[in-house]
Formats: sequence, C-alpha cells, structure tokens
Amino acid sequence: LRTIEWDAERKQVKMIDQRLLPGRLSYIYCQSGEQVSHAIKTMAIRGAPALGVAGAFGVALAMLELSQKRPVDWYEKLLSSCKSLEESRPTAVNLAWGVNRVLSLINPQHSDLEGAARIALEEASRIAEEDVATNMQLAINGSALIDDGDTIIHHCNTGALAGVDWGTAFGAIRFAHEQGKRVHVLVDETRPRLQGARLTAWECEQYGIPYEIITDNAAGYYLRNGRVQKVFFGADRVTANGDVVNKVGTYMLSLAAQANKIPVVCVFPITSVDLSVDNGDEVEIEERPMDEVLSLEMNGVKIAPANAKARNPAFDVTPFQLITAWVTDKGIIRSQFSQIIKRYVYNKPSDGK
Amino acid sequence: LRTIEWDAERKQVKMIDQRLLPGRLSYIYCQSGEQVSHAIKTMAIRGAPALGVAGAFGVALAMLELSQKRPVDWYEKLLSSCKSLEESRPTAVNLAWGVNRVLSLINPQHSDLEGAARIALEEASRIAEEDVATNMQLAINGSALIDDGDTIIHHCNTGALAGVDWGTAFGAIRFAHEQGKRVHVLVDETRPRLQGARLTAWECEQYGIPYEIITDNAAGYYLRNGRVQKVFFGADRVTANGDVVNKVGTYMLSLAAQANKIPVVCVFPITSVDLSVDNGDEVEIEERPMDEVLSLEMNGVKIAPANAKARNPAFDVTPFQLITAWVTDKGIIRSQFSQIIKRYVYNKPSDGK
Repeated sequence: LRTIEWDAERKQVKMIDQRLLPGRLSYIYCQSGEQVSHAIKTMAIRGAPALGVAGAFGVALAMLELSQKRPVDWYEKLLSSCKSLEESRPTAVNLAWGVNRVLSLINPQHSDLEGAARIALEEASRIAEEDVATNMQLAINGSALIDDGDTIIHHCNTGALAGVDWGTAFGAIRFAHEQGKRVHVLVDETRPRLQGARLTAWECEQYGIPYEIITDNAAGYYLRNGRVQKVFFGADRVTANGDVVNKVGTYMLSLAAQANKIPVVCVFPITSVDLSVDNGDEVEIEERPMDEVLSLEMNGVKIAPANAKARNPAFDVTPFQLITAWVTDKGIIRSQFSQIIKRYVYNKPSDGK
Repeated sequence: LRTIEWDAERKQVKMIDQRLLPGRLSYIYCQSGEQVSHAIKTMAIRGAPALGVAGAFGVALAMLELSQKRPVDWYEKLLSSCKSLEESRPTAVNLAWGVNRVLSLINPQHSDLEGAARIALEEASRIAEEDVATNMQLAINGSALIDDGDTIIHHCNTGALAGVDWGTAFGAIRFAHEQGKRVHVLVDETRPRLQGARLTAWECEQYGIPYEIITDNAAGYYLRNGRVQKVFFGADRVTANGDVVNKVGTYMLSLAAQANKIPVVCVFPITSVDLSVDNGDEVEIEERPMDEVLSLEMNGVKIAPANAKARNPAFDVTPFQLITAWVTDKGIIRSQFSQIIKRYVYNKPSDGK
C-alpha cells in the first residue's frame, strides 16, 4: 500500500484519493503536471513528505508531456508548471523542495527532451524511494521517545498517508507498536478537514493500534487530568529557530501540553527545515476555502446558517519554546535547535534547499 | 422570542428545539417532568441559565401531574422526578438550583395538591422572569469590558438561547452592539455539538452582529497574531476558588489567550456559583455519547471509520489563574474571587444554594 507511486504500465502517477477515506479506498491517476497540481490543491493528496514526492512526480509528468509536444519554449513552459505546482500549497516546504530537486537536473540547453523526461522520472522515483527510507528512519528515531504503556495525543494525519509509507509522527507510534510497546492513541479529529478522525483512525485500524477519537477541544481535558504521557505531531515547515509551522491547532495543543508538563514531540524529515526563514511568523499561512469549515452536516442538519462566513487558516505557528524534542531522520534535537540543525543540513547539502 | 416559557392555553412548557437550529426554528411542548428531563438529556434545551428554568418548570409539571393523579406517595414521586431532572445533566449547577428552588416550596404534609401545583408553577414562572432580569444585568455589566472596535472570540453558545433571553457572555456582546460599539465576533464552532456554528452564528444574524465562524483549532492562530482583543464565555459551574467548569475547549482557549496577554472574561449569574465545591477538579465531568463526535458527515462521507470509538467529555476545568474577569449580575470580580464571591452569595441567600 503506497500513498503515491509511478504506474509503469499506464505511464501515470497513481495516488490514493484521501478525500474518500475512511469510507472508500480508491485511486486517482494523473498524466500531467496540471492534474497533480489539482490533486494537491483539492487535497486528494496531502502531508508534507507526500507533497514533496507529488511535486517531484508533477515535474516529471510535465517534462514527459513537453518531450512529446516539443514546443520551442519548452523550458519556460516547464518553469511555469513548476510554479503552479509550488503554489498549489504555499506553506509546506517539501513541495517546493521536491519540485526543485527534479527541475535542477533539467538542462535548458539540452535538446534530448526524451532523455530529460527519463532523468526527471528517475529522480522523482528516487525521491519516492528515499522518502520511504527517510521516514522509516524517522519512525525508528521517534519510537525511542515512546515508552511502554504510553497514551499519546496525535494531531492531524502524519502516517503512511502523509508520505509514501510510514509518514512522520505516526510512523514512530506505529514502529513502537510493532516493537511490542503498548501504546494507546487519542486521535484528535483535527478540524476542519478531520484528517485525524478520517485518516489517522483508519491507519490505526490497519495496524491494530488501540485508539479513540476525541474532538480537538477535548485534548486539554485529557492533558490536564494526567491521562496522557506524550503529544506527537509532524511539521509542514520548521524554520531556522525551531518554530514549527503545522496543521492548525498544533499551537493550542502544544500550549496545553507544556502547561501540564507533557512532552511535545515534533517529527519531520530534514527536508521540512527551511533555513531561509528565521522564524515561523515570517511564513505565509495558507487560508483555505471557508466551505471546509461550513460544509459539515450533523444528523442531516447543516451546521451553520445559510449565509454564514468563515475564516479558515490551514496552519499555525508553534514557537520553539513549546517543543520538547525535534525528531529528524538525522537524529533527535532536544535544545539549541538553531545551532544543531545547521550542522545536519549543511553537512548533507543534497538534503537541504 | 423566548427560549422557554409557560404556554397558559395548552398548560404546557414550550421551548425552542435547539437541535434543529440553524436550519429550522421550531418548538417542542412538554407536559410532564419526564418530558423535560428528556429534552434536557437530548439537548433540545441547553445552556446553564436555561437549564435552571427548565428544571424549575420540570418540577412544576411533575407537581401538576401528581395533583391530578393524587397518589398517596405523591411526595416520594415528586422527589424521584426531581432526582431524574437533576441527573439529566450532572455538571451544570443551575439545573439542580432551579429544581430545588421550586421543590423547597412544596410542603410534604400539605393535602391541597392543586394549591401546591399552583405555587410550583408560579415559582417556576418567577424564576423565568428573574432569569431575564438577571441576564439583562449580566449583559450590562459585561458590556463595560467591551471596547469600540473589539474583535472577540466567543466559545459555545451563551446567548438568548442559553437562557430565557439575553443569556450570559453573548448577552454582553449583544448589549455592547446595541450601545453602538463596533464589535466583531469570531464564533468558534465548539465541537462536538457545534453550538457556536449552529446557535451563536444564528443569534449574530438575528441581531445583525458582524461575525465569522472559525474552527476551535483556529482560535490560537488569531490570538497569537494580534487580531483579537477579548475572549468571552459563560460557565456551567464556578467553584469556590473561581475555577470555571464550562463547555469543553474553554481551557485550551483560555491558555492560548493568557499566553498572548488577551483578557479572558467569564460571564455567569451568581446561581452558577457552587460554594460547596472547593475547586473545579472535584466536579463530575459529564461524558456524553460518542455518537456526538462520530456522527458528522463531510460531503456525504462519514468522518470516522465504521467501528471507531470516541471519548466525549462535555466540559473541562479552567483554573482561576487563567480568568481575567468574572462578570456576575452582582458585579465584576477581577481578583480574590474566593473572598469576594462569598460576600455576594451570602448577602442574598435566596440566590445561593
């Protein structure tokens, strides 16, 4: 079960349509960069690592199309495809990273467009493979922070569905479970798009991990009454100072955890680090359609007045002071994030921006 | 428009069925204590002050029924009705207060049961009238803390629908609006039952108060980015030390407000104070059916796997240290709650327990 992969027979990118889960496991196929952009925008695929891979495949598909049509201004067209891919979700840094890693291999002066397309596809496939290995390493590293008997509050979806496989924070929980540690997950539903209730709960069922769904509001209740040992989540972007830009609600959850001395663990690949930005307040926060807030139904009744307006920021900023541990594929950082992270990222420039 | 009232023609208690809002404004009629208990349990009526009035009318209806059937053990039957009324929602203290205020006027030795029923009904109607006056006073007192131009995050529903009229925290906002102060309300949706999106947004539309709905998760984003001047909510029970037991999510909201130096204003009638309990951690927190968490649909898709389990605490405890101002009908308390509240409650024993 892979969230996104290359279908060699169809010559298309195959991805799980996450909008239909948990009701139905079904796939969509993309044959152009544009279709990938659309899948990202409508959140058929989401999750920072998965977006990196989707972006890479999007460039490969765009290059494939150009190699068939061979327009004179093919490179400008490729750049424009890359731009719309990047802009389909502005906050997660992995998307731009995946796009640029493939783009950087394409030589504008080259005339062998089929060769360029082959190179692009190979690189995208390599990124997908690396994603599995990186996230497996994240799972191993993160699981070290989980003790037998832990009850963990988990925000959003950071499991296999957020990457090609394993994902980030949830991968660590899954690995701890596979090691035989008894874990219990309080899956917060994660409004507005309910990735917790829809996707993380579904993944818990796939792996047999004990869980219960709670509303986002109930996290404070459980953190305060001593029933929770850890809080785990991923990151869409981590800035140079260690601020975490992640799914909206992460900030309040982290505040409530810190107020009750519960460790806050953020798990992400080094590719989610953006050293070009000093702190989280400089990151553009995507505001998504208000329909995501207003379109719910409860017992057949629309949950808001017909003319209601809503605001819908998709992310928030959790200041580094609230994070107990940053778990990366290179190792765990417990303090002095800004110093240590530079060493990790600069030592392996191919992993950085 | 009254949330709950005596219908003299039908000799029944008439209440707005809040489960059908904002889709449809319709009423239910109760002719027995049992029907009132059921309306409370299923949340056709909710909100601390409204529950006090409902409880009072419930006792009156029970006494009316007994005065017609005249069983020998009528007083035991009355006590048992009172007990199930009180237990229909265990956390809000107003419910028990309303029930006991009517019950205390019934003399077990009396044989004029019609007279007792008349007394009970008069007292329940008086409680309803007092509720309007008290909440009007709350609105006046609370509005003093609202400045022209304020953007206010409001939790749950505390408007007219939470009382007979006016309500508590939202009444203050409505009064400020009627005074000509420009206010803007960020209505948090208040999962699981979405009283914010469903009821508070509907009330904003009734009074022409500018508002936008946000998810509960988004409150932290707006508190942190300087766009909010106040946080307002009500209380289901306030303990002797000033801890506030209120709709789940109040605690995290208050933490995020305090972390960003935004005033946290809690508005409630003196009848919501329970001096018999030292602090919030001693209050029984009602856990409601998991269906309230799991039964949502988004674009026709159930939001959780078919076999999912959920936990659903209806309230949480906000420690007194997080409250900037406790607004009561007797006045505003800004510090030393435990000393000052005793003076208010003891001076008017008929308002206390």
